[in-house]
Amino acid sequence: MIDDPVRVARAYLSRVAEPPAPALAAFVAEHGPVRAARLVRDGMVPTDVDRQTSARRARDRAEEDLRQMAAQGGRLVIPEDDEWPDWPFQALTMAAARRLRCGLAPLALWVRGKGNLAESTDRAVAVVGSRSASGYGLHVAAEFGYGLAEAGMTVVSGAAYGIDGAAHRGALAAGGSTIAVLACGVDVAYPAGHERLLAEILEQGLVISEYPPNHSPARHRFLTRNRLIAALGDGTVVVEAGRRSGAKNTAATTSALGRVLMAVPGPVTSSSSSGCNELLRAGDAVPVTSVAEVVESVGRLGFDLVEATGNRDVPPQGDAMRVLEALDPMFPVPTRAVAVESGVELARVEALLPELEAIGAAERIDMGWKRTPEGTWRGDT
Amino acid sequence: MIDDPVRVARAYLSRVAEPPAPALAAFVAEHGPVRAARLVRDGMVPTDVDRQTSARRARDRAEEDLRQMAAQGGRLVIPEDDEWPDWPFQALTMAAARRLRCGLAPLALWVRGKGNLAESTDRAVAVVGSRSASGYGLHVAAEFGYGLAEAGMTVVSGAAYGIDGAAHRGALAAGGSTIAVLACGVDVAYPAGHERLLAEILEQGLVISEYPPNHSPARHRFLTRNRLIAALGDGTVVVEAGRRSGAKNTAATTSALGRVLMAVPGPVTSSSSSGCNELLRAGDAVPVTSVAEVVESVGRLGFDLVEATGNRDVPPQGDAMRVLEALDPMFPVPTRAVAVESGVELARVEALLPELEAIGAAERIDMGWKRTPEGTWRGDT
Repeated sequence: MIDDPVRVARAYLSRVAEPPAPALAAFVAEHGPVRAARLVRDGMVPTDVDRQTSARRARDRAEEDLRQMAAQGGRLVIPEDDEWPDWPFQALTMAAARRLRCGLAPLALWVRGKGNLAESTDRAVAVVGSRSASGYGLHVAAEFGYGLAEAGMTVVSGAAYGIDGAAHRGALAAGGSTIAVLACGVDVAYPAGHERLLAEILEQGLVISEYPPNHSPARHRFLTRNRLIAALGDGTVVVEAGRRSGAKNTAATTSALGRVLMAVPGPVTSSSSSGCNELLRAGDAVPVTSVAEVVESVGRLGFDLVEATGNRDVPPQGDAMRVLEALDPMFPVPTRAVAVESGVELARVEALLPELEAIGAAERIDMGWKRTPEGTWRGDT
Repeated sequence: MIDDPVRVARAYLSRVAEPPAPALAAFVAEHGPVRAARLVRDGMVPTDVDRQTSARRARDRAEEDLRQMAAQGGRLVIPEDDEWPDWPFQALTMAAARRLRCGLAPLALWVRGKGNLAESTDRAVAVVGSRSASGYGLHVAAEFGYGLAEAGMTVVSGAAYGIDGAAHRGALAAGGSTIAVLACGVDVAYPAGHERLLAEILEQGLVISEYPPNHSPARHRFLTRNRLIAALGDGTVVVEAGRRSGAKNTAATTSALGRVLMAVPGPVTSSSSSGCNELLRAGDAVPVTSVAEVVESVGRLGFDLVEATGNRDVPPQGDAMRVLEALDPMFPVPTRAVAVESGVELARVEALLPELEAIGAAERIDMGWKRTPEGTWRGDT
């Protein structure tokens, strides 16, 4: 790993600024990681980048970090790797373009555990909720974790006490895949009481973080981390959340990224469920009462489309089909007009169009989007 | 009561056919109750009316029924009375015009108890749910019954075991008004275990039925009765319902009548809540977690409108205002076009337009509806 100058550069960059650092990210995009790292180290950067990097630029622990990670069976996954979750992070890049606070893909990810990160996030659902969960919440989180893993989905969560832990444990019990996204270094056992759970996740799934080794957690880092949880899932299930739970931050980010937000209804007499019931009443989240409903809600675009196009008797369903039908085969339609025409929220349209492009159903032309012949096959019947 | 030929005629008609009897209702509307009753008694009726009345037409117990009711402190309320709930039943008449099964106002109502029926249903909410309720459901039903009564709303329900009983009891405990709509005669104590509850309701509220005295309950009568519960409330709250609960019938009728359907979210692990959670997931019901949310959801058209028009800083809210804004002050707009323009469901538009007319904000012209100067005041700013 130390032989790869790009990886060494990104290891340095991952420690030099506190994420999210939009100026540094733009600087890296402009100059490439190796040159950007050298310029940062030499202080030859514009003011906004300097502001984000000056405090730590002299502290170059890149090779040491990479060596330590390797010794712990870990690695640094970078955007240049096949393993990089390109697809899930597109939503972050798009959100950054819209200047949303939750935007910005990480510069690199520190990863420990078994399996390929890109493959693990190919079909994934985030399961989140309060630390101070009720017996009901813990039960549902474990059931959902188990059932989603059984259904072949990776369970993404934050390794916190309460709902997070129960979801991870459920997935592990099913022998499935799970990803813990930390707000500290992947070598830091936090929370302390979950040291053993984190060790178990390493055996069967992945523990990841954009923070370098040894970094300790901090309040703002949980919020920054939440955007990765929301981005890595095809949707987020809020199992139980009080009115002020941090899970509501992940929920808001999920919607902002155009991902499917789901909430588990709970007793109106339970303050642990008040956040979920509030999301439902506001119409911000889809209620889900079973694993089957979660799978149905997140759907799977490529798969759904094949199903829909392959069987003309089944009417097209879901946001993706509505977006597709809002496109014209001849004239490019601007994204905002697609949202109006389809009745699907703009953020979700912005997330779906590139997915439709990836499966060959839509293509971007100038300032708008067209339906391709593949997308037209079902769309016009 | 026996001196009034119209009341005697309607007493006879209320027993001669099994409700809902659309052919008989149309016959009464055409000939008036007195002449219709005579013609039915003499068998001088068209085939469809004959089919609905031939089995019972010889059995004239009208005066006896009225005398017995009076002896029990009851009465027959008829459409010709001021006390008739004209307003709530308009939705039934409109549903009948659309040939919906749940349509058709009753020919008369047998009523026992305190208070004026029209006044009691001026601000009312139906609270329904399973007979086999959980402790959670019973608790919420009682709380809602109490809170709604405290908020000055009449609690309408079916006096069944479980949720119904808890809702009535909650309203009684708050010293409020409650109406039990029975699927049998109002002198029949059904269910037997609720004999005392029914007696308490008589002291403080009303027990009503479209079935004549001594009539026993039957399965199909509960379904027929449910439409009255749905019609008498400004909205219906389903507190707890299994997947096959009769409350789901009342729920469907509520939506068909254009009333607000609400459901209380419950644990996804509880089969008693599965019907409610299903209504929420399908988007058929609005989730409500508190009395305040119920009151907010049913709103109150006249009141809301005054609020909205009285304060220009507050943007208009709710379906009524959307409907009002879809009207033009100059050109009548057909009902269907109002639905398209406002984005409010047709059934709800059909329920709201006459309400807007009643408060002087809209008027019916030929085949469409116009906004009046009163309705225009706020509508055009």
